[in-house]
Amino acid sequence: MTDDILCRVGAVIESRKGADPGTSYVAKLFDKGLDAILKKVGEEATETVMAAKDGDPKKVVYEVADLWFHSMVALAHFGLKPEDVLNELARREGLSGLTEFAQRGNK
Amino acid sequence: MTDDILCRVGAVIESRKGADPGTSYVAKLFDKGLDAILKKVGEEATETVMAAKDGDPKKVVYEVADLWFHSMVALAHFGLKPEDVLNELARREGLSGLTEFAQRGNK
Amino acid sequence: MTDDILCRVGAVIESRKGADPGTSYVAKLFDKGLDAILKKVGEEATETVMAAKDGDPKKVVYEVADLWFHSMVALAHFGLKPEDVLNELARREGLSGLTEFAQRGNK
Amino acid sequence: MTDDILCRVGAVIESRKGADPGTSYVAKLFDKGLDAILKKVGEEATETVMAAKDGDPKKVVYEVADLWFHSMVALAHFGLKPEDVLNELARREGLSGLTEFAQRGNK
Repeated sequence: MTDDILCRVGAVIESRKGADPGTSYVAKLFDKGLDAILKKVGEEATETVMAAKDGDPKKVVYEVADLWFHSMVALAHFGLKPEDVLNELARREGLSGLTEFAQRGNK
Repeated sequence: MTDDILCRVGAVIESRKGADPGTSYVAKLFDKGLDAILKKVGEEATETVMAAKDGDPKKVVYEVADLWFHSMVALAHFGLKPEDVLNELARREGLSGLTEFAQRGNK
Repeated sequence: MTDDILCRVGAVIESRKGADPGTSYVAKLFDKGLDAILKKVGEEATETVMAAKDGDPKKVVYEVADLWFHSMVALAHFGLKPEDVLNELARREGLSGLTEFAQRGNK
Repeated sequence: MTDDILCRVGAVIESRKGADPGTSYVAKLFDKGLDAILKKVGEEATETVMAAKDGDPKKVVYEVADLWFHSMVALAHFGLKPEDVLNELARREGLSGLTEFAQRGNK
């Protein structure tokens, strides 16, 4: 059911590259360039932290959605897709149950 | 199919809740508590920004995977799942092609 | 020469508390509340990181000034002053040459 | 007199550049390089935000001290000093009472 939502959102983001900045929020963000995109990633991470400290699950979901969304804009800036991140997560999981994370310790 | 990866990773994370902290990285993170989890979210956002400034696509994928992973640990702390974030993204997309983002302007 | 600049800036910030939000940037920030202030702290930290990755010393100075400035607004929200932070730094220095930092290891 | 503390801490930090990484926390941080320093700046910003959300003034002072300290290590990496940031803040203040901040609006 939830299948491919990220990929669909990634495709919409991709389609905004090079579009008239006046037509959409994402087109405007691409037009502003990498620093503007990364600033949003940092901003949404801070907002996720604040929502979590507020103990407000609904706000946490909203802010994590914002964080993932802007991460996908950053990915698209480099010609990358959410699929690349999913594959990386799958690769780690394949290392027998996220043992890679376990092995890294608290890096 | 691809989003199933997030759900599978989310399920593995969920299974670490309450586990012996010595058995896995995630169990240890849950044991340390919310602040330790959020510190990692902030840290991985900073590392994503640095990887992007380095212009290194492979590192960007790696760091965004770390960022999403630790966001999922934060979600699990609140009994939330990656599906909740995917549903929120789908809800926005349903607002006719991410127009919600467009409408917000550069909030 | 540089003496007391922070204290003077701290006093100006303090004087904006409760002022008409329309009269100054800081008065407006206080009016918006703690989350708006903290969002700026996170934002300026991200901008400091980006300026440093750009290897642009002038921009680093500018962004660190922004970061310290907004930290002082956060301090003022709690009735704290830059002097409190300077005293904390002096206290650590008094621990024979920042040995406290050395002792903490890479916390 | 109080800003002298920053200058003194800045001088101690400067003296750690090129020192044996085994001798102090700051020498080790310089040895690890810019990314390690910036990671700490991002980390301490997140911890400042969390301390403020906890409403714990003592922790806020402690974390802002950490944030400013690691900002100074970043400055030193570029051959900059806390005095450079103080001068920038003084310059803005000289623009008739921080009007520069007012003029920028909520940039």
